[in-house]
Amino acid sequence: MRWIGDDAAVVRGRALAVTSIDTVAEDVHFDLRTHSPADVGWKALAQGLSDIAAMGARPGEAYISLALTPAFDAAQALELVRGAEELAEREGVTLAGGDVVRSSALVVTVAASGWADSERELVGRDGARPGDRIGVTGALGASGAGLLLSNGELEDVLEPSDRQALLRRHLRPEPRLRTGRALAGAGASAMIDLSDGLATDAAHLARQSAAQLTVRVAEAPLAAGVEEVAVAAGREPHEFAVTAGDDYELLVTVPPDRCDEAERSAAESSAPLTWLGEVGGGRGLVLVGPGGAPLIGLQGYEHA
Amino acid sequence: MRWIGDDAAVVRGRALAVTSIDTVAEDVHFDLRTHSPADVGWKALAQGLSDIAAMGARPGEAYISLALTPAFDAAQALELVRGAEELAEREGVTLAGGDVVRSSALVVTVAASGWADSERELVGRDGARPGDRIGVTGALGASGAGLLLSNGELEDVLEPSDRQALLRRHLRPEPRLRTGRALAGAGASAMIDLSDGLATDAAHLARQSAAQLTVRVAEAPLAAGVEEVAVAAGREPHEFAVTAGDDYELLVTVPPDRCDEAERSAAESSAPLTWLGEVGGGRGLVLVGPGGAPLIGLQGYEHA
Repeated sequence: MRWIGDDAAVVRGRALAVTSIDTVAEDVHFDLRTHSPADVGWKALAQGLSDIAAMGARPGEAYISLALTPAFDAAQALELVRGAEELAEREGVTLAGGDVVRSSALVVTVAASGWADSERELVGRDGARPGDRIGVTGALGASGAGLLLSNGELEDVLEPSDRQALLRRHLRPEPRLRTGRALAGAGASAMIDLSDGLATDAAHLARQSAAQLTVRVAEAPLAAGVEEVAVAAGREPHEFAVTAGDDYELLVTVPPDRCDEAERSAAESSAPLTWLGEVGGGRGLVLVGPGGAPLIGLQGYEHA
Repeated sequence: MRWIGDDAAVVRGRALAVTSIDTVAEDVHFDLRTHSPADVGWKALAQGLSDIAAMGARPGEAYISLALTPAFDAAQALELVRGAEELAEREGVTLAGGDVVRSSALVVTVAASGWADSERELVGRDGARPGDRIGVTGALGASGAGLLLSNGELEDVLEPSDRQALLRRHLRPEPRLRTGRALAGAGASAMIDLSDGLATDAAHLARQSAAQLTVRVAEAPLAAGVEEVAVAAGREPHEFAVTAGDDYELLVTVPPDRCDEAERSAAESSAPLTWLGEVGGGRGLVLVGPGGAPLIGLQGYEHA
């Protein structure tokens, strides 16, 4: 295998290559007043790996390109790459290549590759069928709450430990690679990672599957401290959690006869699965509020 | 196969995946006063495909990420992608995925993938051995001369047709994919694409091969009009041609007993090969000037 130093990286392939490319830009996706260079590198890679996770693929390699401003020095650039390497090592991913150019804005792009031996191992967004249950991994709203906290407001809302945990979920989001593979193996019919928030991403999945997803928002699991932060910010906690981005949890649909297996597999991968809805025969997304009423302002959000 | 619309693209893999990631940034790699959006898309893809060409791999897919300024509108973004698609179609490459984000600078990143069935099909930078001959495809200096012309100076140096040809080589550089595969199949021992200029890229190849490359600069083939433009700009034409970037020709080393075959294969792929040096047992790069003397200012350039 050839690596850095040649025109291109050469790695062993498998039957199917699964590839995603994702970019983060300064002051749009991160803020250098709150994100360290290492956080930026971590986040750029996490985005790409989360897409690989949502396909159920096994992670392979990542390629990182840095467009650096003159103000961003070599030590910061190295720290950025080390942040990506830290996540890569944890997830068994190889940073196999890269590029560095000058630019008038700090922009980081990651191409992430995963592999599968057959199409049966993979899960798309288009397989949700009437009768399937809808589940979500982990807990929601952490990254959004961390973003609010990182702006320096809401100082006294939380204990320092909960505060730190939410900030970390914002600065160092965790792609659900093991859980994605586990759910694919347990018969998931469709899957998507929550990058834009459950309300938006569930609508994507409904559209791609040409199905109707009914999601009971009040049953969405909230990360510790999200309720307090949302209330302090004047937001309804569950609505806040399903519209906040960058959680990188997985939204999944599972046929009824595979639900026990999916629940067990997800738990074993250390990300519990919470059921919060069903797939129906119509089209689009119905978000149901606490009293069973359609949630004002969200019903039909991005309807197919 | 899944394409746009899912979390990641899924394509059929082969035994070896060859991947390069390359970025171009506004006012560093291109100038929107001279480059159309389509030129930018073309150029970003050409860079990546040129790396695939230099490995001798067969081209596969490309993934394009656009970081767009508010001033760059949707029509321009579409035109940019169409420029990349135009080159992709010509070269049998599939644009399989992408990302679009906002940014305060226009930055375009392409991850290009190629494939090979075995390592024997591929050529690195590290295989040059004493006795090998050094060849270069096509003609040099066209992109550099086109850059000078695009700045609007040197108006009357050339006939319009030569002028247009040089401008086009600057705006729409052509990766040597067929020639790269042909040379790999004809026994090339090492290969690199000329992105930074022969003087710099030959030094990379010398270093990676731990060999000495002696290149007779006066034997470098010049593109039509390069001599006139260089002279008008007060530069020695061959020195200009071997230090100008973005030609995307291939520099190759070939064992003596394969030189006829390499020459024939390159010509059949429509890029003639010109021999201009030999590999020796020392280290580094020796650029020999017209009279046989080391070229002032270039000898030992980036010595290993």
